[in-house]
Amino acid sequence: MPASTNFRRRFSGRRVLITGGLGFIGSNLARTLVALGARVTIVDCLAPHYGGNRRNLAGVARQVKIHIADVRDSPRLPRLVRGQDFLFNLAGQTSHMDSMTDPQTDLDINCRAQLAILEACRRYNPAIRIVFASTRQIYGRPDYLPVDEKHPLRPVDVNGINKIAGESFHLLYSRVHGIRATALRLTNTIGPRMRVKDARQTFVGVWIRRLLDGQPFEVWGGEQVRDFTYVDDAVDAFLLAASRPEAEGRVFNLGGPPPVTLTRLAEHLVAINGAGDFVVREFPADRKKIDIGDYYADDRLIGRTLGWKPRTDLRTALQRTLEYYRTELRYYV
Amino acid sequence: MPASTNFRRRFSGRRVLITGGLGFIGSNLARTLVALGARVTIVDCLAPHYGGNRRNLAGVARQVKIHIADVRDSPRLPRLVRGQDFLFNLAGQTSHMDSMTDPQTDLDINCRAQLAILEACRRYNPAIRIVFASTRQIYGRPDYLPVDEKHPLRPVDVNGINKIAGESFHLLYSRVHGIRATALRLTNTIGPRMRVKDARQTFVGVWIRRLLDGQPFEVWGGEQVRDFTYVDDAVDAFLLAASRPEAEGRVFNLGGPPPVTLTRLAEHLVAINGAGDFVVREFPADRKKIDIGDYYADDRLIGRTLGWKPRTDLRTALQRTLEYYRTELRYYV
Repeated sequence: MPASTNFRRRFSGRRVLITGGLGFIGSNLARTLVALGARVTIVDCLAPHYGGNRRNLAGVARQVKIHIADVRDSPRLPRLVRGQDFLFNLAGQTSHMDSMTDPQTDLDINCRAQLAILEACRRYNPAIRIVFASTRQIYGRPDYLPVDEKHPLRPVDVNGINKIAGESFHLLYSRVHGIRATALRLTNTIGPRMRVKDARQTFVGVWIRRLLDGQPFEVWGGEQVRDFTYVDDAVDAFLLAASRPEAEGRVFNLGGPPPVTLTRLAEHLVAINGAGDFVVREFPADRKKIDIGDYYADDRLIGRTLGWKPRTDLRTALQRTLEYYRTELRYYV
Repeated sequence: MPASTNFRRRFSGRRVLITGGLGFIGSNLARTLVALGARVTIVDCLAPHYGGNRRNLAGVARQVKIHIADVRDSPRLPRLVRGQDFLFNLAGQTSHMDSMTDPQTDLDINCRAQLAILEACRRYNPAIRIVFASTRQIYGRPDYLPVDEKHPLRPVDVNGINKIAGESFHLLYSRVHGIRATALRLTNTIGPRMRVKDARQTFVGVWIRRLLDGQPFEVWGGEQVRDFTYVDDAVDAFLLAASRPEAEGRVFNLGGPPPVTLTRLAEHLVAINGAGDFVVREFPADRKKIDIGDYYADDRLIGRTLGWKPRTDLRTALQRTLEYYRTELRYYV
């Protein structure tokens, strides 16, 4: 496949730092980069409510340097960024509800630490190439669908506000200080190694866990339309963004195969699993206040600019995810 | 005047907290509120590069409670906000250049401390009424003029990014937690008690200082178009915003009399002073990168909604400012 040949040329022997590298997308990215011959260093704080899990690197842990460190610990950052060719910056607080109940922690990770990482790059490694994991959450409730990158940013929660700041710092440092950075605005990403313990990363995680435990899972609302990126496609986008000069200083949405309602997704999941059940429940009041309603991305800009498109259909994505957790669930609960 | 009668009814005997209350706009607001019979408490850190100056309260200091405290010192916040009827939240880092050379400090004051203030209000005084000092800096380089509140937010410096977050937190807490807050997006504000030591608050300050010292002042660029709010008009807007339920949860631009180029403003100032000189210099490279070009506000929304309009023409504004510093300059250098 030509893309992966190019990636091998681009990343083989290169030094790559991944923040949040024991997490869901970070670990999938790390595994791919190891396979491409990159020299991978991971920073992860392994905090209990976050996505980090040592099991995510099973089989490749010896080929990766792992620092158990918190990106909020700014004195450690200069040493970590020095000498790296690439930084995939994925460390983040992802729970929308947690950002409302503990807003300062969300700020410290998603906003304050991001600026510290960029300052460390500016001072100690201005030639580094950065790709930052941003989020569709910054758009808030869409004015129109699909949502393109020009849609106004009107976040509905603390997480969205801090992620705007984090993304904006990356673009500013690119424009003013010449630190080459790209931001990818992720939608729901699913696949092996996602958090399934609870809904802090994605509600699909907890659905799958309940399903495999033989318990009915809860669908809140049900009529919301959402899109889902399979993690391998997201990894491809990170590698592409880091490979192409056209991506520098820019922001791209990631999308997925055609969007579905949550009820449709739940039916799909039960059918693929061959068994299981779910109940549709009304949206809890505290979540309703920060709900964004329907969302799906217009991802044509990254298609036109970098040639990315989601290649995994929803059925395959769900199948592979279920397969993974059928044998691995005990490491994730 | 009916407005001030209303203000008396609204603020007499009420408890008002002003962060940044020894600063330029904060102290003018404090003086007006004292005159209206309010019980004013001020928080100011009196940091040397900021706007705070004890001289700003000359004559009214005994009628005001002053806490020399930093809004970053979050454990102190609950006690400060408790029992207050109003919070005028003006503490901020205002220098665009300083936000680029010391971005973490800008973040800690303009973003992190703002969230801590709002959290303190949510927990200890959810009935408080807040008016937050935001800035035109969050728009970045305008797409069109005059700039209305719907203009996209595309800040060109760290200060703009953090002020967006600070403003967004206020609006979010209003929407989700019912903490009634209004944000005013200020443009250049001028008048007695502004910082004249350097250009950290407004370049007009340093112009006036040089002029009164008998030195030529420097105009950078010169062709940029800007608008100027006289501080008494800004104070009016803060009081109006705190008085009207229609202002809750909303954002308003403040503008001024018709905008002028900086060269025109410089000529004006020299003419009013009756003597003096200036040189037009090219924009320094590091500032050029974060310059916003022409800006002036469309302030019709606050006009329509709250009946505010700038009442002081530019000539009067400059005259009164010059008059003030003719006798007071020694306290400000």
